Order: sequence, then C-alpha cells, then structure tokens
Amino acid sequence: MAYMGPGSAGHFVKMVHNGIEYALMELIAEAYDLMKRGLGLDNGELGRTFRAWSLGGLGGYLMEITARIFDHQDPGTGQALVDAILGVARQKGTGLWTTVAAMELQVPAPTIDQAVAQRDMSALHEQRIQAATLLSRPDGPEPGARDALLLELEQGLQTAMLVAFAQGLAVLSAASEQYGYGLDLATVARIWRGGCIIRTALLERIMAAYVHQADLPNLLLDPNLAGMCRAQEAGLRSVVGFGATQAIPIPGLMSALAYLDSYRSAWLPANLIQAQRDCFGAHTYERVDRPGQFHTEWEKED
Amino acid sequence: MAYMGPGSAGHFVKMVHNGIEYALMELIAEAYDLMKRGLGLDNGELGRTFRAWSLGGLGGYLMEITARIFDHQDPGTGQALVDAILGVARQKGTGLWTTVAAMELQVPAPTIDQAVAQRDMSALHEQRIQAATLLSRPDGPEPGARDALLLELEQGLQTAMLVAFAQGLAVLSAASEQYGYGLDLATVARIWRGGCIIRTALLERIMAAYVHQADLPNLLLDPNLAGMCRAQEAGLRSVVGFGATQAIPIPGLMSALAYLDSYRSAWLPANLIQAQRDCFGAHTYERVDRPGQFHTEWEKED
Repeated sequence: MAYMGPGSAGHFVKMVHNGIEYALMELIAEAYDLMKRGLGLDNGELGRTFRAWSLGGLGGYLMEITARIFDHQDPGTGQALVDAILGVARQKGTGLWTTVAAMELQVPAPTIDQAVAQRDMSALHEQRIQAATLLSRPDGPEPGARDALLLELEQGLQTAMLVAFAQGLAVLSAASEQYGYGLDLATVARIWRGGCIIRTALLERIMAAYVHQADLPNLLLDPNLAGMCRAQEAGLRSVVGFGATQAIPIPGLMSALAYLDSYRSAWLPANLIQAQRDCFGAHTYERVDRPGQFHTEWEKED
Repeated sequence: MAYMGPGSAGHFVKMVHNGIEYALMELIAEAYDLMKRGLGLDNGELGRTFRAWSLGGLGGYLMEITARIFDHQDPGTGQALVDAILGVARQKGTGLWTTVAAMELQVPAPTIDQAVAQRDMSALHEQRIQAATLLSRPDGPEPGARDALLLELEQGLQTAMLVAFAQGLAVLSAASEQYGYGLDLATVARIWRGGCIIRTALLERIMAAYVHQADLPNLLLDPNLAGMCRAQEAGLRSVVGFGATQAIPIPGLMSALAYLDSYRSAWLPANLIQAQRDCFGAHTYERVDRPGQFHTEWEKED
C-alpha cells in the first residue's frame, strides 16, 4: 500500500485500475475465442496454452486464473465448467466511469471503452440468438499453421495489453495534472505489480519507464517499451487479420492496434473532419502553416 | 420537423443524431486515410472517388461536402486547402454525451465511442510527432489492385455506416423504452432523411425497416438490412485486413466489423469473463442449462 495523493486520488487510481482490468479481461476473452472458434482448440489445449503463456511475458494473476479455469470440471456434468457458464457479463460500474473520466479529460482510452461496450454486447443474448439465424457467420479461409498463429497471438496479446496499460496510465497522468493529484506513476506501477488483479510481468517494465522519466505522458514514448512494441506488433497485426477473415469479433485487439497505429502517426485524417465541421457549421479550423482560427466559405466554390 | 415525444425526447434524439454524425465523419476520414496513405490517391482522385460514391448507396450530405472539400483550392498557396488544415479535431460535447448515455443504458455503441476517442487522439498532436520518430510506421506489403480495393472500400463503408446507424438507433430504442419517450423510429428516420447532416440514401431503407416493424430492437434484425450486410460485408472484412497490414489506423471501421461479428454470434466468450469474475471476486455467474446464480470455489481445485 502507498499514499496516492490528495483528495480523491486514491479512488481515481482504483477506478483506472478497474478500467484496465476490464480491458485485459476482454483481450484474454478475445484470445480465447480466436483459439476456440478460430483454431478449434479444446479446453485441455486452451488450459495448457494459457498456462504456458502465464510462464512468459504474459505472466500475471489473470493469466494464472484463466489457465486454472479451463482445468475446472463441473461436478454435476463431468464436463468443463467454463462451457456451462452463460456468456453474459454485465457492466454498470468502474469500467464505465473510467471511460467517462477519460473522455472528460479528452484522453483516448478506446480499448477500455470497447471492453465496456462488449460487456453490454454480451448481455444482448436473446437478440444475438435471433441475429445468428439471419446473419450466419461467413466461412473464412482455412487457418494457417496453428503453432505460428499461437505465437503471433501470444505476441499480439502482449502488445495489446501494453497498449491497454498505456491508455489507462495516460488517463492517470492527465488526471494527476488536471486535478492536482501529484501522482507518482512509478509508485502506482509498483503497488499494482505487488498484488492486484492486473498484476503482470509487464508492470516491471512499466515501473522502469516511470523511474526513467517520471512525467512520461504515454508509455509508448518510453524507448524500451516502444522497442517491445516494434518487436511484437507484427503478431497483433496478423491476429487482427485472422479475426477479420474468420468473422471472430475482437474489438479490443483491433482497438489496441488502431491506437498504436494512430499514436505513431504524426499525420491523421482529422483535417478532413475539421474541413467538414467548418463547411456545415462554420466551426473554424487551424492551419498547419500559421497560427490562428480560420473559416472558409466552402459552398461558394461550386 | 415532427414532435418527438414527451420531456427531453427531442434533445435525446438530437444528441444521438450527433453521435451518429461523429461516427460517420470518422468512418469517412478513415476511408480518406486508406486511399491517401494506403493507395496513394491524390486530392483530385480523392474528390472524384467521393463524388462517385455520393451518386450511389453512400449518397448523402456528408459525402457531397466531402467531395467538394477536395476540390477547394487555398487562394493563398494555390494548393488544395484540405492539406493546409491541421488534423486536430477536439471533442467536448454531444459525441461524449451519446457514449455516456449508451453506456448508462447498457447498449453497445462502440463505433460512436471510437469516433469520440479518435478526436481526442487527433488532439495529441505533439505527442504523436514525438511517437512517430520512436515508432516509425512499418512497411506493409504492396497493395493489390487499386480498383478492387476501392470497390471493397465503398461496400465496406456502406456496411460500417449501416452499423453506426444500427448502434445509434438501438440507443434511441432503449432510451424510448427506459425513459418513456414513446419514439416512433420510422418518423425519426424520415426527418433525418429529410434534411440534416447525417441524411443519406441509407435512411430510406432504415425507415422502411421501422415501418415494417415499429419495435425493431436493432436494424441488423431487419431481413432487408441484414441481407445488405451479408452482400457487402466481405468488403469491410478486406478493408480491415488492408488497414491492419498497412498500419493505417481505422478504429471506426474495425469497431463496426467487430460489432457486426459480435451481434451475429449466439455464443460469445464472456463465459470466461464471468468465470474470472467469480474466481477473483465471487461475483457469481449464470449457467446455460438452468436458471439461478452460481458460485464456485475455483481455488480449491489446485
């Protein structure tokens, strides 16, 4: 335990912890789906895969309990208990609050947002049963070599989890400045690593990043973590392509890749959005070549 | 104009209109990026493509002004004005409110959420310039035939826009029930079609869906719109794969595909999330084979 800062700092840190927890759980669930429906792994193989991952860079509390869950038999049926559990996970709490807090601070946290939305999607059980008959899942191509894809998935999941931490910690960083919490993010990473639901091997490297630069605005700007991304992002890219062609929904993994590819883009197409907003609402725009706010009479050209 | 319903019904409808507007603008901006950075189209080609699209199934106000924007020269430089506009589009309004309202109603609206988050991402201009040097964009494979990809993009964009409308209108449907607005969604579609920023050819088919079934919980459950999805979704799938391999961020298009593939899945992997929640927090779970709330002592097995 450690003192976090003045006022509601401790509550805010706990809230963001839970937002990251939502994201990590969603990412693990998507990896499960890719392996189950995409590659046809059975529960024994799933348990062994998650256990193997929990011994490597993905090691942490959630990966450990996930491996254990796949081993658990249902005493009533003698089958794996996980298959008897209804896939409806509601949300009405700290995940939503993290999304709202991030949006109010104008800090993007799309993987947390997607995890919240996907809980709501899971709750639409009756509608999804109806939709499944109208919109049956299209056949994808035969998947490639299973071992290669499992390795890409392990690397892709690590990249996506790092991105989820980067989003959550960027929210904390902005909140600390905006609300005067004076948070020490190295300490936050240290206590999370020490024991909580999101404790993971990754937090060691995250703590090191903040020890190296206390006011780091985003983990992806740390040279070591950026290097880790570069080394493993190809896995995430392949996994996203696999999910798309196999019609397996992976909104969390996709949002993590899109976040990474957005954050590394000095140029983004929001110039078009600004032009549209100025065209229909005279909202004005900024220019790349000089300061100020500008407005154009777009209609006059036609 | 039409009377929407009691209390704040009119405000709520306008708010969701703006949430859908955020989503459509983000989707168009992503199509622009895929064509510009992914396929190397110049502004003349972009304007012609958007103009051609505005004459087909993508026709509507936003597509028309987008085509016009690419024609507009900057009198000061003689170059296309769109390239002089800074790609920073902030949010602090109705997009965010729609996301919050959707999450409070527990209705997933991930493409609207992503559009809000991506505005915040666009505002991190200085950080992105810094990240671009640390995390330079990886080279993708040579893109395939341009004309084939442009056709897939047109189809993919139509599918994604339909999904964005489906999300927004599902929020309205839930709000109408929850807050007693008594909304007539066919009328909402009719007035939106009549004249507003999101008016599009698609609204004709959306109105028909609600005329056919006034209490339709989701547009994807309408047989005609579901058929349109089935016919065009392969384009969205290809476009998502293209964005992933080319490292072009398309969070809106990706979230639309993930929403479609989630909504059509009778089974989703949230059973694992429920098992995890019961394991670490004794939150209990439901079963597929009998009613009730259940708890398991997961730890005892090891």
